[in-house]
Amino acid sequence: MPEVRLDPWGRPDIKDYSRLYEVFGIRPFREVAEKMKSMGIEQSLLMRRGIVFGHRDFDSLLDFYKRGEKVAVMTGFVPSGGFHFGHLLTGKQLVYFQNLGFKVFVGIADAEAYAVRHIKRKEAIRIGVEEYIANLLAIGLDERKTEFYFQTSRKGSYHSLIQLFGSKITSSEFESIYGEITPGKIVSALTQAADILHPQLDEYGGYKMVLVPVGADQDPHLRLTRDLAERMKGEVELRPPSSIYHRLMRGLDGGKMSSSRPETTIFLNEPLEVARKKFMSSLTGGRNTAEEQRRLGGEPEKCPVFDFYIYQLIEDDNKLNDVYKRCKGGKLLCGECKAMGFSMIREFLEEHQRKLEASREVAWSIVEAPKF
Amino acid sequence: MPEVRLDPWGRPDIKDYSRLYEVFGIRPFREVAEKMKSMGIEQSLLMRRGIVFGHRDFDSLLDFYKRGEKVAVMTGFVPSGGFHFGHLLTGKQLVYFQNLGFKVFVGIADAEAYAVRHIKRKEAIRIGVEEYIANLLAIGLDERKTEFYFQTSRKGSYHSLIQLFGSKITSSEFESIYGEITPGKIVSALTQAADILHPQLDEYGGYKMVLVPVGADQDPHLRLTRDLAERMKGEVELRPPSSIYHRLMRGLDGGKMSSSRPETTIFLNEPLEVARKKFMSSLTGGRNTAEEQRRLGGEPEKCPVFDFYIYQLIEDDNKLNDVYKRCKGGKLLCGECKAMGFSMIREFLEEHQRKLEASREVAWSIVEAPKF
Repeated sequence: MPEVRLDPWGRPDIKDYSRLYEVFGIRPFREVAEKMKSMGIEQSLLMRRGIVFGHRDFDSLLDFYKRGEKVAVMTGFVPSGGFHFGHLLTGKQLVYFQNLGFKVFVGIADAEAYAVRHIKRKEAIRIGVEEYIANLLAIGLDERKTEFYFQTSRKGSYHSLIQLFGSKITSSEFESIYGEITPGKIVSALTQAADILHPQLDEYGGYKMVLVPVGADQDPHLRLTRDLAERMKGEVELRPPSSIYHRLMRGLDGGKMSSSRPETTIFLNEPLEVARKKFMSSLTGGRNTAEEQRRLGGEPEKCPVFDFYIYQLIEDDNKLNDVYKRCKGGKLLCGECKAMGFSMIREFLEEHQRKLEASREVAWSIVEAPKF
Repeated sequence: MPEVRLDPWGRPDIKDYSRLYEVFGIRPFREVAEKMKSMGIEQSLLMRRGIVFGHRDFDSLLDFYKRGEKVAVMTGFVPSGGFHFGHLLTGKQLVYFQNLGFKVFVGIADAEAYAVRHIKRKEAIRIGVEEYIANLLAIGLDERKTEFYFQTSRKGSYHSLIQLFGSKITSSEFESIYGEITPGKIVSALTQAADILHPQLDEYGGYKMVLVPVGADQDPHLRLTRDLAERMKGEVELRPPSSIYHRLMRGLDGGKMSSSRPETTIFLNEPLEVARKKFMSSLTGGRNTAEEQRRLGGEPEKCPVFDFYIYQLIEDDNKLNDVYKRCKGGKLLCGECKAMGFSMIREFLEEHQRKLEASREVAWSIVEAPKF
């Protein structure tokens, strides 16, 4: 079998998701959909559209949930750039689980921003509060049910976990997961494992099981974390986390959506005119000429604009299907389609940016920012 | 130049201390002795006998001290075994500097005990409190002027330092200092650097300069720590620590004194009869026969028993000199000499063990033990 390695710090372009099932033991999400239904839990938009395609132990998590045990959902954001539609995708998953009664933990990965992305500390702290926390509040995360924290200023035994994890993984295991071993990457990886596992400790609420929703490229961290949890047995009892995996939304240029390439995405605090220009210049699944497109139809499967519709903009499945058919049938050309898409984005951004004003101030008041 | 590497986790046997001056830039301690005299500071027993043989920046530290700036002395103990005469040597240095007005920080290196020595957590915590802290109190460290803490339960920005240090050293630098790179060693080394540097942060008192008294084998940690301090410039201002270096006391078998080889040393909580047996079986600098020794004289330079005298048991220089001359002159044979030595040890241990009873209870009350 050829080597398959996911690099959480690289720029993956996963072509064949089914390989993740075979090589890494991620289970197809459709296996748990039935269980959710029997429990009367409605799937999220991402789940029912197959964007959430895989999971680990989500069925066990549902069992805990069913029994009324305390469960939590956890995610981390690296404060290295603005909050964009890619982050929004994760944010909406947090809101979905919050509405189901999960406690939400949001870690601002300022240690990782410093160690791996070389972001100045003050800047990372500002971005963490004014971009990540503020936007998450503005999209509806309830501050009373969410614990926001910075990695470097987290209080309590969280840090003990990082220190103890150090001896629970060998250099060669680390290299096989991450491709190389550097002090910065080790500290970041162990810190992420603590992010995921610490909500189980009594002092943070003693949550029975923690769910981590991630892009498929983040699975290496999860595998490390699961191993560390098992290896801490006898010192402190930690259950390996559950995880769900979503496909990555394409960037506007067809490549990976990333804040380090601002042209690939739309930031939620972006001036509307800038957002419009980016969106209208997006790559599409259109043909070379209008005539050709009317004749052959478009290719929504390849289209970043259609990704925006599926992942976020069009919640009504019938409406989405209608757009799909009109595109495939050559009835909907790209100019018209983008204009329609941008009017949805405009509507969302206008309201969101109003909320953002207010939530920035709240954001500073609900998190303990690092001293340096 | 042949490679010279000091391994702080190995079992060094440093034969030629002068090489440390040339290769690593440690300065001879005698250079600062004059300055101490001019300031009216009496040298400690270890200093005036040349056991403290080297330093880094001790002259700068004296300048701060002279100007009335806040200075601190810091050391760490790995709670992997009992407190013995080797630790006592460090403990006495702490008391000496405390009497000069230095704030004392004592870190119990429980993270390192776990990561590098594989000590069970509960055992490390017990040893940290009942062996290290209790013995240090019993030998006269004033709990009101000393901050005792465990690495894993230290509060505040101490842990931020560990996280931020990760990106300030490359893998190859780490390997050249420590010989290999493993997650456990990285976390331990960065944690030690935080131990040494954190007293300078405002939240721990804002000490202007921190002194670290160490055995010569510990210099690699100091070099790493000095580099990290320099490289944090712009994020947080940290002054490279000052350090003083002492020769290592020989173990009773002539090898390295170590708690992992109990026959090499005497533990301060040891039953007197056990202590006596060990001491009376010590290797000495004696000759093969009494006759030969009367004729040729003993060799105190090679004698572990004489090390006990120089380093600890005989404070009066005239008395020490007298023992030396009687040994060299063949007048003092080993049996008599050991009996004399053990009577000093007995006197010390009897009183110390009485104090230890009481200080154990105090020890538990003045430190925050880790939760797990």
